[in-house]
Amino acid sequence: MNNISIAVQGGAGEDSEFIKSHQSGYKKGLEDAVNTGYKILKGGGSALDAVENAVRSLEDNPLFNSGRGSALNNKGEVEMDASIMDGKKNNAGAVSMVRNVKNPVTLARFIMENTSHVFLSGAGALEIAKEEDLALEGDSYFITEHQVEEFIKDRKQDDYNAILKKRIHGTVGAVALDKAGNLAAATSTGGTPNCLDGRIGDSCVIGAGCYANNSSCAVSGTGDGELLIINVIAYSIAFYMELKNCSLQDACDYVIHQRNMDVEGDIGVIAVDTRGNLGVCFNSERMHRAWKNNEEKITVKIYK
Amino acid sequence: MNNISIAVQGGAGEDSEFIKSHQSGYKKGLEDAVNTGYKILKGGGSALDAVENAVRSLEDNPLFNSGRGSALNNKGEVEMDASIMDGKKNNAGAVSMVRNVKNPVTLARFIMENTSHVFLSGAGALEIAKEEDLALEGDSYFITEHQVEEFIKDRKQDDYNAILKKRIHGTVGAVALDKAGNLAAATSTGGTPNCLDGRIGDSCVIGAGCYANNSSCAVSGTGDGELLIINVIAYSIAFYMELKNCSLQDACDYVIHQRNMDVEGDIGVIAVDTRGNLGVCFNSERMHRAWKNNEEKITVKIYK
Repeated sequence: MNNISIAVQGGAGEDSEFIKSHQSGYKKGLEDAVNTGYKILKGGGSALDAVENAVRSLEDNPLFNSGRGSALNNKGEVEMDASIMDGKKNNAGAVSMVRNVKNPVTLARFIMENTSHVFLSGAGALEIAKEEDLALEGDSYFITEHQVEEFIKDRKQDDYNAILKKRIHGTVGAVALDKAGNLAAATSTGGTPNCLDGRIGDSCVIGAGCYANNSSCAVSGTGDGELLIINVIAYSIAFYMELKNCSLQDACDYVIHQRNMDVEGDIGVIAVDTRGNLGVCFNSERMHRAWKNNEEKITVKIYK
Repeated sequence: MNNISIAVQGGAGEDSEFIKSHQSGYKKGLEDAVNTGYKILKGGGSALDAVENAVRSLEDNPLFNSGRGSALNNKGEVEMDASIMDGKKNNAGAVSMVRNVKNPVTLARFIMENTSHVFLSGAGALEIAKEEDLALEGDSYFITEHQVEEFIKDRKQDDYNAILKKRIHGTVGAVALDKAGNLAAATSTGGTPNCLDGRIGDSCVIGAGCYANNSSCAVSGTGDGELLIINVIAYSIAFYMELKNCSLQDACDYVIHQRNMDVEGDIGVIAVDTRGNLGVCFNSERMHRAWKNNEEKITVKIYK
């Protein structure tokens, strides 16, 4: 049997009391996402199906900041971003600022496969979801007690200037290699508590928080979204590997610990290449992550 | 005196009767944009000021598809995207789906310099423009007779499926090197006639249609926006140059004519490096472009 492999991430950044006290729930969610994707790969399914469904399981899990459990922006609204990329066809789909779509990653995939667009936003994206009968939910579905508390806490302490300077993270994502040797990546986010409405992060920017190419690797990125955009993190890893013909882990280490060693903020990635090798790298206190390689036991980690 | 250099682009793609019959107007607009930026550079101004003002002059020119003269989406509305990147500070700003902002590139610069955000969209971006007293215009300011004709023509012939499969281009942009040796790039667009509302192209995606880094070069891209996003064109040129230590023109040629030789669609770039060398490359019938290097005469071209 050819190698199969899947990795998922549930965000990188600082530790918190909430994370500490919900470790087992987070680990269970990461494990469920890996198992969902792995089952598809083992049955001969595509990497694309595996990453979409792994991300869907994290979007449906209220502990993670994507889909249900998304952060509330400074208007108290949920706006979600997501993207997916097919390493075989070199095609991608992305959505930003979508509301009411239960699984933004599925809408991103619809856009990739059924339109000539790559990147669709706001009301236009929602219209496609309605037109195509993708699952929708009311506003209250997405809002959890934890995110309401975060919103209220931030709202009390943030003035206009603090909102403009707000650091932003909170993401989920998956990368996979299927039996046919194809790669795929997907990333999804619910944004950051009390951030400006309309703020777009790396999760829907192809090359920043998501990239896949069968000639190198598939990458899902997380951390301070703005840093991932400016430094084009996911694509840097893939293009470095392509041009230097080095190992995936070396490419991840180079991009995060050398080329971007001076950035002030958090960057984390999970990645997989066409042989099933995994790349895991982050410069932050923690990165929620899990993976499963062939028949090996699943690995689930939060801290270093 | 150190080298100074500026190049501008006004879109790449197929030829048209409208372009043929308005050649002198287009050339005048490109020349004006170059002169606007060059004057700033010659006076010791920054590359950032030069590209912002060169792009503003194209946004203000109704012949070009950005700012005044933007295309109408399938709702008959103008939604604009723009981005700017500072090669010295490795910082960037981008806006998508903005309405009523006279110069989207100036809003992108405001976001870069005054917020921790990189990428802001829709109503949230418009609110910042209002809050900061950036110049606004009513809807009618942006709409030209030519774009109304294009919209009506496309609306008659496009069904829903044709809209989903629509190819998209029409951009302006500038790159510059200043006396201090700093690079900057900026790109702006009004979208495509009768396209889905919410469609985001490469012009506001850092790494796709805009990238600048003093360690390599500044690039503004144009053509089929989706191809520039998926293939991360602007950043590919810069990172290739950085890793291979090759000339800028070689990097442009490699990315467009080799790495992406099989793409079905139009890609064009203008670029400048820290020595003032220009890179100009496109695979399409035409690319509106102009440049001025030190005291050399200005060059203005539309066809090959």
